[in-house]
Amino acid sequence: MRLFYDIIADKRDNIALSDEDISYFLESYLTGQLNDYQMSAMLMAVYFNSLNDRELKTWTSKMLYSGKVLDFSDIDGFVVDKHSTGGVGDKISIPLAPLLAELGFFVPMISGRGLGPTGGTLDKLESIPGFSVNIDVDKFHKLVREVGFSMIGQTAEIAPLDKRLYALRDVTATVESIPMIAASIMSKKLAEGIRGLMLDLKVGKGAFMKTFERGKKLAQTMQTIGNQFDTHVDVLFTNMDEPLGYAVGNSLEIMESLDVMQGRYVPQVSELTIEMAATLMKTFGMVKSLEEGREKAETALKSGKVYEKFRTLAELQGGDPRSLDDRSRLPMANKKVEIKAASDGFIAEVDALSFGKALIQLGGGRLRQEDSIDPGVGFIINKKVGEKVSRGETLYTICYSSAAKLETAKEYLEDAVVISGSEVLKKDLILGNL
Amino acid sequence: MRLFYDIIADKRDNIALSDEDISYFLESYLTGQLNDYQMSAMLMAVYFNSLNDRELKTWTSKMLYSGKVLDFSDIDGFVVDKHSTGGVGDKISIPLAPLLAELGFFVPMISGRGLGPTGGTLDKLESIPGFSVNIDVDKFHKLVREVGFSMIGQTAEIAPLDKRLYALRDVTATVESIPMIAASIMSKKLAEGIRGLMLDLKVGKGAFMKTFERGKKLAQTMQTIGNQFDTHVDVLFTNMDEPLGYAVGNSLEIMESLDVMQGRYVPQVSELTIEMAATLMKTFGMVKSLEEGREKAETALKSGKVYEKFRTLAELQGGDPRSLDDRSRLPMANKKVEIKAASDGFIAEVDALSFGKALIQLGGGRLRQEDSIDPGVGFIINKKVGEKVSRGETLYTICYSSAAKLETAKEYLEDAVVISGSEVLKKDLILGNL
Repeated sequence: MRLFYDIIADKRDNIALSDEDISYFLESYLTGQLNDYQMSAMLMAVYFNSLNDRELKTWTSKMLYSGKVLDFSDIDGFVVDKHSTGGVGDKISIPLAPLLAELGFFVPMISGRGLGPTGGTLDKLESIPGFSVNIDVDKFHKLVREVGFSMIGQTAEIAPLDKRLYALRDVTATVESIPMIAASIMSKKLAEGIRGLMLDLKVGKGAFMKTFERGKKLAQTMQTIGNQFDTHVDVLFTNMDEPLGYAVGNSLEIMESLDVMQGRYVPQVSELTIEMAATLMKTFGMVKSLEEGREKAETALKSGKVYEKFRTLAELQGGDPRSLDDRSRLPMANKKVEIKAASDGFIAEVDALSFGKALIQLGGGRLRQEDSIDPGVGFIINKKVGEKVSRGETLYTICYSSAAKLETAKEYLEDAVVISGSEVLKKDLILGNL
Repeated sequence: MRLFYDIIADKRDNIALSDEDISYFLESYLTGQLNDYQMSAMLMAVYFNSLNDRELKTWTSKMLYSGKVLDFSDIDGFVVDKHSTGGVGDKISIPLAPLLAELGFFVPMISGRGLGPTGGTLDKLESIPGFSVNIDVDKFHKLVREVGFSMIGQTAEIAPLDKRLYALRDVTATVESIPMIAASIMSKKLAEGIRGLMLDLKVGKGAFMKTFERGKKLAQTMQTIGNQFDTHVDVLFTNMDEPLGYAVGNSLEIMESLDVMQGRYVPQVSELTIEMAATLMKTFGMVKSLEEGREKAETALKSGKVYEKFRTLAELQGGDPRSLDDRSRLPMANKKVEIKAASDGFIAEVDALSFGKALIQLGGGRLRQEDSIDPGVGFIINKKVGEKVSRGETLYTICYSSAAKLETAKEYLEDAVVISGSEVLKKDLILGNL
């Protein structure tokens, strides 16, 4: 076997690694023969010199098969999932998973927690009293078969190598590597045994990918990996300059999701949920056109059956269904303050990043993985970009539990909402597809 | 203080690090707050994005002052040293140090051991029975003051941060970084309290720097650091395609060094020793021209006083002076074989790298730092590049102690000497200066 030094040096010198070298390197890391400091040097070299398609396939494969891989091959139906690159107020997974299940898909959804300004599906679900996202892979597998979907957190059984590599990247400034991001997401998603993935690629101030250019590169890389593993990756590029929808904060976002699932049309949130369902239906030949898919999705939401499906799953995962029927049982901060417009005009900006950072200050997000979360705090956006506003009208409402935290949060929001004297066009939420 | 992640990310993104960031990063590494895996990511980022002059100065300074720094400021004379980037048969330090001392310099020489095809001064000195290179800094300081020079090995007291960083670079494919190489050498040399450094930059097949381009870049970087610390760096570029001189192997090289010190003119070895002494004398205004310097150096060698100085120092460092007066007391392998020319012609090539590798096979060099060395084995080069040779004449002689080792060594030497039918020009040893 080659020296670890020489394998790192090859990547450093932009010489493509053989499949044998990649396998040996990654296996040695898992067994502890290769040290963290050697892996981090490799990761930084990959940051600079990237991986070609073949290397990427091998690398992803090693991460994928380092743990359990679900097998739904005997199921009569399409197994799909959705992934968002993360944003502020992005609760789409919550109404989308039961909607897809209602439409006939099977959705084994493994999600993440919030970190930094970006929220996480798991934290939102845990706002529901009793709801557990810590379920072993076998029970998860069973729930997906029986209910049509399940929503859990990353477990040690799925792609453990990715988990170790991510932890290392997270302290060595090698997170921002497009092939590594793509391989990390895809190894976990492929382990779910899916045939289709709906990728929501957020672009803008509140997104991880600041430029459309990098977002597109990431999406293409994920599609390449998908093709290599017979998994179709649909991509929607969506705007993340302003928060998605009207609710920002864990319990508040569950409430907004319930609205969507109960058939109320929530601008942006219902729109994107429906569009993603329609896209997947079209991809898998379940409808002839996107328009037909949208209609079916809308009908399903209006029928109340999507809410019923979610309620069923929540209960099977330990959640108290009464808290869904009666929202006053969901956690909610006991104090509220409304922030008013200082002038007449049009909303030109509602800065997603500022709201994401302010949520951390309120206690509703986390700076470090070990931080705990206050599910009841957050924001209601009363005026969205493009809306007309009069002096004294409420721009947004802050739900908080501590006056001190409110003050710090307000500092982050000072310039978050911009009012323009002249008319402002509403921004498109969906920017395009791939 | 900034996050380690952000400091690594700055270097990764080619943003120059502030002096404060460099100091904090390196100090945190010494105290253990910063981990090896974070440092190796930084080292790989430095490999790609380099360090500017200011960053390099700060980085070198942190390594330099991580340990003891010798102070000769009260001495009436110039304190200088010599460094070679390493090659095969390079024993110049051994005659040069006492020559410089005889000429009035003070030479606190800290050297290294051999690794891979490159020999090391310490291993050569240890061929002398009893000679100890493990002397603490205080005694070393005293010997330099009293004898004019001393030759020891790297101690834990000198630049310990460089020692730790080098060990990490050595397993993470970050050795080959010019700013890191320059900072590593200079931090150790500056710790000797020198005002001048003679740098022998080896270029060619048997050298660490394979191209003149990279060699020049390294030399310039070392000069830049020298200037920042008020230390003049003289540079000679010398050829390392063929072994330097006629002896390759530890005890054999001591014998060749004794020849030079005793006033016999050994082509290449005497030439380079004299040139370096002359260069330093010129730099420090001790002579008006290089020519005058060469004459003074030659006179000193011929006087026998250089040999006397070396003998004195060897004895003070525990060496048996009788082994210098009577070379039969130096270690020598008990078997010899002469390799003959298979055809008439001119020597076109004597491949230094092959001889370096073959020496390891004989037991006279090491592949890993922990390997021990057989001082008595090696090669005598009977014909140098450019010399005329007749079929049956001896090309080189192998001194060996084990027949099995001889066979492996021979494999490395199969194509080491090339004979050409047409005349071959002698190669210049000294290629230029800077």
